[in-house]
Amino acid sequence: MSFETLDALRDLLIQMPGPDATALAAAAERNGQLTKPPGALGRLEDLAQWYASWRGTPRPSVDAPQVIVFAGNHGVAARGVSAFPPDVTAQMVANFAAGGAAINQLARTFGARMDVVPLELDRPTQDFTQGPAMSEADVVAALRAGWDAVDAGADLLVVGEMGIGNTTSASAIAAALFGGTAEDWTGRGTGVEGEALALKTAVVAEALEMHADMRDGLEVLRCLGGRELAGMAGAIARARAMRVPVILDGFIATAAAATLAHTEAGALDHCVAGHQSAEGGHARMLSTLGKPPLLSLELRLGEGSGAALAIGILKGAVACHSGMATFAEAGVADG
Amino acid sequence: MSFETLDALRDLLIQMPGPDATALAAAAERNGQLTKPPGALGRLEDLAQWYASWRGTPRPSVDAPQVIVFAGNHGVAARGVSAFPPDVTAQMVANFAAGGAAINQLARTFGARMDVVPLELDRPTQDFTQGPAMSEADVVAALRAGWDAVDAGADLLVVGEMGIGNTTSASAIAAALFGGTAEDWTGRGTGVEGEALALKTAVVAEALEMHADMRDGLEVLRCLGGRELAGMAGAIARARAMRVPVILDGFIATAAAATLAHTEAGALDHCVAGHQSAEGGHARMLSTLGKPPLLSLELRLGEGSGAALAIGILKGAVACHSGMATFAEAGVADG
Repeated sequence: MSFETLDALRDLLIQMPGPDATALAAAAERNGQLTKPPGALGRLEDLAQWYASWRGTPRPSVDAPQVIVFAGNHGVAARGVSAFPPDVTAQMVANFAAGGAAINQLARTFGARMDVVPLELDRPTQDFTQGPAMSEADVVAALRAGWDAVDAGADLLVVGEMGIGNTTSASAIAAALFGGTAEDWTGRGTGVEGEALALKTAVVAEALEMHADMRDGLEVLRCLGGRELAGMAGAIARARAMRVPVILDGFIATAAAATLAHTEAGALDHCVAGHQSAEGGHARMLSTLGKPPLLSLELRLGEGSGAALAIGILKGAVACHSGMATFAEAGVADG
Repeated sequence: MSFETLDALRDLLIQMPGPDATALAAAAERNGQLTKPPGALGRLEDLAQWYASWRGTPRPSVDAPQVIVFAGNHGVAARGVSAFPPDVTAQMVANFAAGGAAINQLARTFGARMDVVPLELDRPTQDFTQGPAMSEADVVAALRAGWDAVDAGADLLVVGEMGIGNTTSASAIAAALFGGTAEDWTGRGTGVEGEALALKTAVVAEALEMHADMRDGLEVLRCLGGRELAGMAGAIARARAMRVPVILDGFIATAAAATLAHTEAGALDHCVAGHQSAEGGHARMLSTLGKPPLLSLELRLGEGSGAALAIGILKGAVACHSGMATFAEAGVADG
């Protein structure tokens, strides 16, 4: 199963599998029998049952989480929208490969496999204030790179990104998908303030004027995205096809994911929000998507870092659900 | 170092060590050199530096977390303040020993050693609406059991509790320490509602009337506490003596900890709040103590469960701080 055009991917998104209602019912029944007062594990209980429903078993485990970091370069970076120069994208890819970045430490802490997928770093996307960021062939290639990067044995997926200039891309995508102005969605990214923030906002406004008429989320992704955003979207779609649950990361990863939900409603039902980023627009994005974050620790790094941190929460939730004794097993009076 | 009276413990609390300023300064300098935009790891950065300051090294690791669950029975349980019968305390201790409770799964998930310390379960404390819950000898014995339960090799401590009736004790303690009415601090505990909640609130009000004149936090602990609350307080004090950081759990554990802070200001500087419980008074308690929670996932189980979940957050923070490459090491341009 794969795709060679955006229309073929649109067709695939319509045919994606849903959660397993039988597994969900059995997991809910088990949850009610565990040695704790009803509801005392709060959101962990919902999280474990949601995970069970996608894995198709009432008593699942999280054994093979995978973190994939996609990297890409952006033509719009030449407009001076980032506090860092574009060379940093490739330098950080080398840092990921050497194990020196934050996401490497977090993946290791939570027992996740980590893959890095640099996407044509020497060929930045077109400046989207001048025309579409990518041709159909370019965006399909990046989506497929994401689709193909998901490990066949993964049972949980986190996708992250590195790409100087990509909060500008994500801001433009958010405004195009959710409405509102450039000001509503443009934030400081890696540390842009004052005049530089005003410039970044103006660039997003230009982009929205240039691309006023996009038919759906995938077209928004093509016109305003970057290769690493398309890679993330492709991986999230593949995870859905495999019934692998996904923990969403911050502003940029969520914008990339939202292009799927704005192509086919429900396309993110297999996703939870790992955290709420300090990037201003993220809270609004999550609330619009109906995804309350698991964590809110003022992270604004990207790389998949906030989602990787939330792997621990999901592991804890699933460990309680699947490992606890029932009242009957433990000989505990249930109230 | 130990104590045979409450006054001897009061003296010890005055002499406790503080954080290592040199290690903190070195950790802050390291934090500024890591391959990320300044502040991009948000609260993880503060958390790692705080941990470094208490461990006395700029590049620490979390290798030996310990979870201790204390259990005790409460005379006040006979008043019908819980949705569960008192026998459940001993039944849950057996469940902890057999590995079947939520805290067992969470300790295992985050690589923590777990110890269970039942404290004279066949000898409940006195109903504190009739007199002090414990004699000085009783509370000192429970405090010392906690003090002695901390492992010499631990580098992080979580304390939790099991004790039917102990949210009633914690509510009374909170009102005595922080002011306000019985209504302000009395919540549903394991699932008390309607008339049962009104009764529980009335019991707390009776207790406050009975014990109007307590000189400090340790006296509040003696009059209104339970053995498991004293055990937690003793372990938290011992951790401070050992410069072992502590992650605080929910409503009951925080009430127990607060008795130390109301005996000697700053006695909880080595503690962070692991989570905000769904038990109503906990948010107010944490805000009064100046301890913003790391997690807020609507847990209200006790056992140390919310704090154990936060071990993962601390491990992630420390792994990033100590494991990441610097800009110079990675050859990344720092903006």
